[in-house]
Amino acid sequence: MSERNRKPPYRKKPDFKRDRRDRPPPGRRPARVAEPDTAILYGWHTVEAALANPDRRIRVLYATENAAKRLAADGIALKVTPQIVRPDEIARRLGPDAVHNGLLAEADPLDAPDLSELPAEGIVLVLDQITDPHNVGAILRSAAAFGVNALITTARHSPEATGVLAKSASGALEYVPLVTVQNLARGLNALRERGFLLVGLDSEGAADLADTTLRAPLALVLGAEGKGLRQLTRETCDVTARLDLPGAIKSLNVSNAAALALYVATTRLKARG
Amino acid sequence: MSERNRKPPYRKKPDFKRDRRDRPPPGRRPARVAEPDTAILYGWHTVEAALANPDRRIRVLYATENAAKRLAADGIALKVTPQIVRPDEIARRLGPDAVHNGLLAEADPLDAPDLSELPAEGIVLVLDQITDPHNVGAILRSAAAFGVNALITTARHSPEATGVLAKSASGALEYVPLVTVQNLARGLNALRERGFLLVGLDSEGAADLADTTLRAPLALVLGAEGKGLRQLTRETCDVTARLDLPGAIKSLNVSNAAALALYVATTRLKARG
Repeated sequence: MSERNRKPPYRKKPDFKRDRRDRPPPGRRPARVAEPDTAILYGWHTVEAALANPDRRIRVLYATENAAKRLAADGIALKVTPQIVRPDEIARRLGPDAVHNGLLAEADPLDAPDLSELPAEGIVLVLDQITDPHNVGAILRSAAAFGVNALITTARHSPEATGVLAKSASGALEYVPLVTVQNLARGLNALRERGFLLVGLDSEGAADLADTTLRAPLALVLGAEGKGLRQLTRETCDVTARLDLPGAIKSLNVSNAAALALYVATTRLKARG
Repeated sequence: MSERNRKPPYRKKPDFKRDRRDRPPPGRRPARVAEPDTAILYGWHTVEAALANPDRRIRVLYATENAAKRLAADGIALKVTPQIVRPDEIARRLGPDAVHNGLLAEADPLDAPDLSELPAEGIVLVLDQITDPHNVGAILRSAAAFGVNALITTARHSPEATGVLAKSASGALEYVPLVTVQNLARGLNALRERGFLLVGLDSEGAADLADTTLRAPLALVLGAEGKGLRQLTRETCDVTARLDLPGAIKSLNVSNAAALALYVATTRLKARG
């Protein structure tokens, strides 16, 4: 916890909008099905960050006795009175592989800003149909670590902001707005009109990202492993760039590639002043 | 596949040694239990790389009709006559979440060199009790992408070189020797005696890795998320370094941190010439 330097502004809770992330989580559905429009949050960092976010409404908080004691010892306000449960009661809802650290919350999803509301500065990340919630969660975490202003995904072929994604994001859901767009090419064009430089990461990119001229505001666009960027996505970008790798394997896990791209881009933008 | 620039030398198959990786995979055990000392390999890249490695003995190869056709179309030698199966027969062995691409192989584990056999050059990665096979697999993949000479793990509290790890490594098991040591501090001292600079990655590190003096041969040492490096590991390193992050969250997923550290280190070593 001491390693995290949490700071406002947190993301907002929803008011009137209902987007696709308001649906219940796919796959590993809890044994007792939560009501629709529920974000399932579990694991220490994920729940702690949600409790610390004034705009995240927690409906129900399940905690083991140990976890409740640890929250109290850390002086964390709980928003709601926790229901004290045994670890196996949480495990039964999440499945045996979930590392829940004795904490599970049912919460309102957060509001998602519109593309037009994003500040025309810094960096946004755009994901072209990356479906794996572990990867998207890890990317969201890296986005928060590099101070990215938004993560933009397609409404279809993207995981929901709940469950495994929230766990892998390790609290980052509370910091980085997750914007979903129906049509990615249209979304990219809207970003360009607002001044963003659109850089598509592609194994066949024109040059190494480290040798590509970058400027803020910058949109880094990543495709799924194997498939890469869809043709229309690639054509909509201003420039494509690759990540040159010196070894025998020429591609990284997509969340690793995202972290590397963010490092290169933030370092380059900082050097430009 | 065209993105991969595969090249010898591949890793060797075992001859006389039997190490801990010769045990059957933990967890998600196949419905039909494979004989002991079996590496379970599934997924296109993982099986393709194993078939291309002359030192990897394949005992049994299961392939769907489509996967077998694709292997033939790509001109990939199969080593053994594949058993043609339905996709659900593979899924039944691996579980519903495994993306197997119609390929599953039972193979001999590869031989692991001794620490003393590693070349005293370039970079090795050392993992201090990182247990998640997805993360270790992704780290192995990045290690292959950055031309790392070995991945060194502890014999205990490390995942086996099979199943999920092999899948996440996406073929990298065939390229990067996985060395296991009983005692990590002793292993690190052996590396130092061979000339390696031991740099421990730690959130409380002395300086940002990008500002740390590096030289080859270099051992980058990573700890588990949350726990970090064990005290003795940290004390055994020559220097500790952190990865400074500008955003609200101050830590990355461990495989993302490994990719970043490798990028920084390879870039710095290259700049030194």
